[in-house]
Amino acid sequence: MRNYKGIISYDGTHYLGWQKTRMGPSIEEELEKALSTLLRHPVQLQAASRTDAGVHAKGQVINFFTHVDIDFYRFSKGINALLPQDIRLLSLEEMPQDFHPTLTALGKEYVYEICSSTIQSPFFRDRSWHFPYKLNLEDMREAVKTLLGTHDFSSFCNDRNLIERDPICTLHSIDIEETSNHHVRIIVQGNRFLYKMMRNLAGTIAYTGCGKITADSLSDILLSRQRSLAGMTAPAHGLYLQRVLYSL
Amino acid sequence: MRNYKGIISYDGTHYLGWQKTRMGPSIEEELEKALSTLLRHPVQLQAASRTDAGVHAKGQVINFFTHVDIDFYRFSKGINALLPQDIRLLSLEEMPQDFHPTLTALGKEYVYEICSSTIQSPFFRDRSWHFPYKLNLEDMREAVKTLLGTHDFSSFCNDRNLIERDPICTLHSIDIEETSNHHVRIIVQGNRFLYKMMRNLAGTIAYTGCGKITADSLSDILLSRQRSLAGMTAPAHGLYLQRVLYSL
Repeated sequence: MRNYKGIISYDGTHYLGWQKTRMGPSIEEELEKALSTLLRHPVQLQAASRTDAGVHAKGQVINFFTHVDIDFYRFSKGINALLPQDIRLLSLEEMPQDFHPTLTALGKEYVYEICSSTIQSPFFRDRSWHFPYKLNLEDMREAVKTLLGTHDFSSFCNDRNLIERDPICTLHSIDIEETSNHHVRIIVQGNRFLYKMMRNLAGTIAYTGCGKITADSLSDILLSRQRSLAGMTAPAHGLYLQRVLYSL
Repeated sequence: MRNYKGIISYDGTHYLGWQKTRMGPSIEEELEKALSTLLRHPVQLQAASRTDAGVHAKGQVINFFTHVDIDFYRFSKGINALLPQDIRLLSLEEMPQDFHPTLTALGKEYVYEICSSTIQSPFFRDRSWHFPYKLNLEDMREAVKTLLGTHDFSSFCNDRNLIERDPICTLHSIDIEETSNHHVRIIVQGNRFLYKMMRNLAGTIAYTGCGKITADSLSDILLSRQRSLAGMTAPAHGLYLQRVLYSL
């Protein structure tokens, strides 16, 4: 059997998240359906990240096994015609048998988009968090230095069970960019992310931008291991799984 | 009565266009409903452009009359809370009694967005025309010179009655920009636009980019006054009413 790695992009607005559920549409179900139809055999997917309802992806990574020798150029036309327009297969390549989208990954990059203007453009309504407060980017950049490196991120995780298992993560970089007037992008690379950690980080970093949380208190929040002390969980529709990092 | 000028932005995806119709939702109906509720009297709107189904606007201009002295800051919160999230009132100002969004306008600026990559990002699916052919921007820029100035634009109008009335328009500028890899933006300023003229221009200009129409033949097409000789009508979802031009 051949092991294929695919890169997927999706607008998560109309889905209950990556994972299959009986409650409604999921990215996984749509992809499995399209791949099974085109390959003419049942396909089982594994994904690098089980994104939540409403979360988007520009570089989700999946793998699946098939005996079919796939020519990507022709295959991509077929699969993207079968998929709904808000899910696209961007690339596909054959990998060694032991490739696994999560287990062989070094980490992930997430992007969180904030719109801080008084009135949000209708074109960003499902694609950025409308947080209509003046943000001081220098304060945000100063504050996030505290979060870099290896720490116990319990204060940023919404799942007690997960915290008890292993709350230690390493954040390699946090960049704060102004992409246009009143649009701020937070880009985080890390080896792993706890449940809702990226949205809790985004909510907390936004609070440092409008003065609700200072750089000093952010350090205390991290050490406290108390979820209740950190900022709000920023909404799902501002979050993008940007890419998954592999060694090569 | 006070005469208010408003600037509106909307994502046209889920509407049958600007104009009220019994067939389904329209921007005009949603705005009239929200304004009438907030002002507590029936409101009649006039708009600078009756955009088609699926067409977007970043700077549609409307006016309406009311006896209410409106404070925009407070009013904008109320009106934008009443409006669906894909329609926003961006600004409002009181104008002289004789201000009219069309009659006092000098012209309009439309933007047409083309995505020429093999696979279209899901985030652009309702917001740019997927035209997956290599576009030569220099050829496009050379070709559009023919269209500048005052001409009979019958070859770019889908309505025979309108052509017979007055097919003469003046295009002040046509800019072709590459906004990012495989994304091309056509920006046109003109004194007036015939029915579907901007979409016919976009389709024809795209054809000059992939070599289907040359600069020389574009000149012949313009002179021919034959709609059938020009390029296709580009789809509505790539078109944006960018702004309406007034003397001040």
